[in-house]
Amino acid sequence: MPIVDIHTHVYPPTFVDLLRSRTTVPYIRNFPDAPDSARLVILPGEDDPSMPSTSRGRPIGPEYYDIAEKIAFMDMHQINTSVISLANPWLDFLPPEEAGEAAVRINNDVDGLCAKYPGRLFAFGTLPLSGPVETVVKEIERLKSLKHMRGVIMGTSGLGNGLDDPALDPIYAALEKHEQLVFLHPHYGLPASVYGPRASEYGHVLPLALGFPLETTIAVSRMLLSGVWDRFKNLKVLLAHSGGTLPFLAGRIESCIQHDGHLKNAGKTQNRRDLWDILKTNIYLDAVVYSKAGLKAAFEASGADRLLFGTDHPFFPPLEENANEWHSVTTNYKAILASFANDQLAVQNVFGNNATRILNLHT
Amino acid sequence: MPIVDIHTHVYPPTFVDLLRSRTTVPYIRNFPDAPDSARLVILPGEDDPSMPSTSRGRPIGPEYYDIAEKIAFMDMHQINTSVISLANPWLDFLPPEEAGEAAVRINNDVDGLCAKYPGRLFAFGTLPLSGPVETVVKEIERLKSLKHMRGVIMGTSGLGNGLDDPALDPIYAALEKHEQLVFLHPHYGLPASVYGPRASEYGHVLPLALGFPLETTIAVSRMLLSGVWDRFKNLKVLLAHSGGTLPFLAGRIESCIQHDGHLKNAGKTQNRRDLWDILKTNIYLDAVVYSKAGLKAAFEASGADRLLFGTDHPFFPPLEENANEWHSVTTNYKAILASFANDQLAVQNVFGNNATRILNLHT
Repeated sequence: MPIVDIHTHVYPPTFVDLLRSRTTVPYIRNFPDAPDSARLVILPGEDDPSMPSTSRGRPIGPEYYDIAEKIAFMDMHQINTSVISLANPWLDFLPPEEAGEAAVRINNDVDGLCAKYPGRLFAFGTLPLSGPVETVVKEIERLKSLKHMRGVIMGTSGLGNGLDDPALDPIYAALEKHEQLVFLHPHYGLPASVYGPRASEYGHVLPLALGFPLETTIAVSRMLLSGVWDRFKNLKVLLAHSGGTLPFLAGRIESCIQHDGHLKNAGKTQNRRDLWDILKTNIYLDAVVYSKAGLKAAFEASGADRLLFGTDHPFFPPLEENANEWHSVTTNYKAILASFANDQLAVQNVFGNNATRILNLHT
Repeated sequence: MPIVDIHTHVYPPTFVDLLRSRTTVPYIRNFPDAPDSARLVILPGEDDPSMPSTSRGRPIGPEYYDIAEKIAFMDMHQINTSVISLANPWLDFLPPEEAGEAAVRINNDVDGLCAKYPGRLFAFGTLPLSGPVETVVKEIERLKSLKHMRGVIMGTSGLGNGLDDPALDPIYAALEKHEQLVFLHPHYGLPASVYGPRASEYGHVLPLALGFPLETTIAVSRMLLSGVWDRFKNLKVLLAHSGGTLPFLAGRIESCIQHDGHLKNAGKTQNRRDLWDILKTNIYLDAVVYSKAGLKAAFEASGADRLLFGTDHPFFPPLEENANEWHSVTTNYKAILASFANDQLAVQNVFGNNATRILNLHT
């Protein structure tokens, strides 16, 4: 049974160089109080100068940037093929005039990493979203010429006003035209105030466990409500973390739309594609939800032929030294096996066949 | 098959009087541009003076305050028994010195409404949470003497700092001691900024469909992380809207706790009750999730013996005139029937047996 990991991140050398050149979030730095250990700080909430550097962000080692470590991780977990993607926050933070060139440089770097391991690595490209729209469209076109690219990864910010921004339409049109799947991934989370005054006592749990999936849910709902999939009926989106919470809330979202007097009076409740249709036509979900409960909802919402195994490597490593498997990975393995216990074909589809078919990974 | 509705709200006359006496959110008012139609405005985001009054809040009619309308609604949908609760924002907004007396007055009013329809109505009481802790504890004790009370409804604000506030411990202790179940219900939503600059084009959909369940999810996660259920092992909580998104995210929450270096170093990852244990011991979920996908996750997380039918009446009424059934209700009916198609006992448990057993509604 081939296993394909479609949610696995890299910090390729060109991206590490860029992050090392910076002094504000996101950045990579060796702090004076621990000069031998580099820290990666990507979230504003992690960048607290009052804390020792060992509590800021997270340690960054070769598993983040050495592609040989990715392959070793894949071998450890019997993963045949990985579709690697740049980790958040991608290039969202770049000055507009630098974005296009950085995207070319980094996408070429990632494509080159894939070339080192034929058949084992493919990638999602990164778009220069802080740059002019024409630059973004040009990079979408150019990605088609890179042998290992199979779509793009994108955050929820879009051009700065979210994914329901009509200014994104030329980008959605180009993605649809060139049949580039969008891997939609969170980064920005929610305002810290929602976690209350005691949040720091809970480590990174609240922003990681809740902020990420809730951000994704809000972003996709805004796309739905603004009619993105009514205008771009073939735009395909793969949602990180099994859609955030979208499968669970889809019924409530549909019910709230149907019962909204404002939308009804504006004529927006008729002649629209409903969320269930979009979930079964335009949306794919990764299987990175760490439970049978989550996977059952994802399966009901989207179907076993639209669920794709992922690991979120290199995040969530084991806390023990010298562990020979990653608990975060085996939790997802076990959830898939438990959810489809009586359906071996569904298991094979989720673990690899769906990714191979949808992303055209035949070698 | 007895049908029990455990999620159904009232604005009893004493509460309507209180809301009519106010000029800031929450309030009930007849605006000069539509003097014959009273509006209920409970969310700050709904109170926009630049809009015509017919777009502010929602119209409020007898279905909100006339208990005979509740009974008629129950009859229309074959609901035998309802456990009514004050609607949000309860008494959270009152000056501390008024809270205790208002709670006594309103709880007595609600208990009196139940007495009018023996066997058909029970209630969750309302706590004077803006008052002194001793006043809250006293009302918890007093509620035991009211014949129809079967627990309390509570928002996510607690005493103003959320449900992970250690100052709530005497209240949790009293609820546990007096075996009063807490019906945890959202009200505050999320900061408007998360919905982006176009949110008003989408009516009330984003705050209602997402803000409410995401608020609940955050609140319960904070209770979990602060160890509420480690200290109060018998505290029972019924979560509105099938737990917000808790069943779907439970796996991710547990994974993030297990992988958090800060929590590990603080010794907080061992000797704790995990979320799966709490979901099957302390938490009940209503079945107000409008989909098979959501119910499947709720069932997996908590079990069919912990899911309870509800309607959210009088919210989500049909948009058509003279409808003889509520689409919001039949959507939940159908989801339950579809989820447990081959298990008639589970269907009966979710529709009524669980509520009767858990809330002691035998008459």
